[in-house]
Amino acid sequence: MSSSKLYLAVVGVGGVGTAFLSQLSNLPTSLRPTLIFLSRSAKQLYTQNYDAISPSDLQSSSSKLLSLSDLTSYLSGTPGKAILVDNTSNQDVANAYPSFLRKGISVVTPNKKAFSGSLQLWTDIFSAVEESDGRAMVYHESSVGAGLPVISTLKDLVATGDTVTRIEGVFSGTMSFLFNSFAPAESSGTGKGAKWSEIVTQAKEAGYTEPDPRDDLNGMDVARKLTILARLAGLKVEGPESFPVQSLIPKELESAGSSDEFMKRLPEFDGEMEGYKDQAAREGKVVRYVGSVDVGAGKVKVGLEMVERGTPIASLRGSDNLICFYTKRYGANPLVIQGAGAGGEVTAMGVTADLIKVVERLR
Amino acid sequence: MSSSKLYLAVVGVGGVGTAFLSQLSNLPTSLRPTLIFLSRSAKQLYTQNYDAISPSDLQSSSSKLLSLSDLTSYLSGTPGKAILVDNTSNQDVANAYPSFLRKGISVVTPNKKAFSGSLQLWTDIFSAVEESDGRAMVYHESSVGAGLPVISTLKDLVATGDTVTRIEGVFSGTMSFLFNSFAPAESSGTGKGAKWSEIVTQAKEAGYTEPDPRDDLNGMDVARKLTILARLAGLKVEGPESFPVQSLIPKELESAGSSDEFMKRLPEFDGEMEGYKDQAAREGKVVRYVGSVDVGAGKVKVGLEMVERGTPIASLRGSDNLICFYTKRYGANPLVIQGAGAGGEVTAMGVTADLIKVVERLR
Repeated sequence: MSSSKLYLAVVGVGGVGTAFLSQLSNLPTSLRPTLIFLSRSAKQLYTQNYDAISPSDLQSSSSKLLSLSDLTSYLSGTPGKAILVDNTSNQDVANAYPSFLRKGISVVTPNKKAFSGSLQLWTDIFSAVEESDGRAMVYHESSVGAGLPVISTLKDLVATGDTVTRIEGVFSGTMSFLFNSFAPAESSGTGKGAKWSEIVTQAKEAGYTEPDPRDDLNGMDVARKLTILARLAGLKVEGPESFPVQSLIPKELESAGSSDEFMKRLPEFDGEMEGYKDQAAREGKVVRYVGSVDVGAGKVKVGLEMVERGTPIASLRGSDNLICFYTKRYGANPLVIQGAGAGGEVTAMGVTADLIKVVERLR
Repeated sequence: MSSSKLYLAVVGVGGVGTAFLSQLSNLPTSLRPTLIFLSRSAKQLYTQNYDAISPSDLQSSSSKLLSLSDLTSYLSGTPGKAILVDNTSNQDVANAYPSFLRKGISVVTPNKKAFSGSLQLWTDIFSAVEESDGRAMVYHESSVGAGLPVISTLKDLVATGDTVTRIEGVFSGTMSFLFNSFAPAESSGTGKGAKWSEIVTQAKEAGYTEPDPRDDLNGMDVARKLTILARLAGLKVEGPESFPVQSLIPKELESAGSSDEFMKRLPEFDGEMEGYKDQAAREGKVVRYVGSVDVGAGKVKVGLEMVERGTPIASLRGSDNLICFYTKRYGANPLVIQGAGAGGEVTAMGVTADLIKVVERLR
């Protein structure tokens, strides 16, 4: 509501960052802060006197690289208010959020590391927001489910006094695709369809997995998201390694060396996955990779579950995410949010929508 | 961000209003504006000198009743900024929003009438917001789907530059309950189950319908919600009567007199509804009451549709709403929001969450 000018720094220009810059350039002027800093890996572009620069100038490179500490000073020196958009998944940048916030610099980010790392970092971030008395804010919608309204909905439920009893769902687009292909809810479920290793191979070739599929199969991405949701629901979760997470990397292949070596040996374990599928089929169910937070019992877990056919989780398609919030107000039928939970454009959408909210609050 | 004090007026203390006041009383002081006006039907409570009053004082009544115009003057005279929460479904109050907004008074409401009435009123409301240059804002999450994040999600999609191509879903808890009971997706679909009139009777007795079920069966409630969504998606819809809405009140009973008379004669038309159900069953489908906006073609419609089993709409349970947003970024699989779309507590939740956002922007 005050009329001070807003300045924007953007760190990270990968898939999400590129889509974000494109969305940013299409915002009306009144919602678009002045871009004064842009960095990608070892390239940085900024102006000493806080003039506007255009993202199209990114090709040019500066001779002097700013450290995160330099960047904090640079941004706290603007004649108005500064906002940092962090489109990296970098832990060092995440670790610096409390410093940015304490200097009155707001943070908007899809970076999971900041909110799923140590509980100390989480506490530092939100204490800094609290202490700023409304000057600095942090928004991170895209840290779970990309642009799907997951974080904002959970925050609204809690802020308005509802009691969240349970959060449950499919939180990885990759896992969703793998299991929807491996054990589709429509098929009879036994003996037919592609083998597990074949489906992982297809997914890898189509670019649906990380370059090394073990980075999806270890479940840590899902565990990080559950850590964030559990904390927002009020649980003091130490981190993604403080609760049971079922890895789909066979023990024997944990140190299999290269990604190629891993993929080559994966067929040896097709029988094990087929076993889960058959077991589920015998119970009239399908196997899915599910994350859940039991708020009352204080329990978080991630792993394979046998899911009743006809339920929303069993009926998921493609690589969609699905998140169910069970609360006191909503009763037996949860509030459900479903849709693409990964991809540059939809992740950037969450970042851009967050930026708009920060601008509306700061201007 | 400025530190001026915030003042709150609440109009309407029915089911939603009572739940809202309870949620309001549990907000932290920093998010709770000073309550200075409270009205219910012909009772009003306010203080001339903008002192705090407690909702528990509602029993006392004032001798002098303020008109809407008086209330506008009263609220624009506060020494800080004023917010009006309208928990009525009153058209007169809705018609006054532009006057409130032009005086810098923000509006938070679940009142559908304001956004689904004449296109002129819609334009007046949002022009007033625009012209206030950030001083006055309007939030109306609960005007569609109660506390489900429907309005905010659609606004975020549009604001970040996505192209919404189609909106489709079940927008009435009553219609959802009636059809999920009449033609459950799990049953074979023909010849069995309760008759349509029996299900309407049960729903009426359980309080799931309006006192006169014709107020649900005429489809106007759904048409109002579709009007709001279509306008937010960019269509210039004249109003809920400007597109095809299929009424489930048989022509012969439109002027059947009392609600009792209507209910008594409803069984005469069970055959017609059974016909729809059987037709759907022959195609392997189920009949549902669906609303849709085809943004590209500029077409809105509301009525019975034959829906494929296994789809989210066919699989709905209880009285849940379900809203699908098809957009360019989300591609073939829509962004889906599902859950209770009616009820005092969840409707009030949307109002309270909106109020928090307004307070965060104004303070």
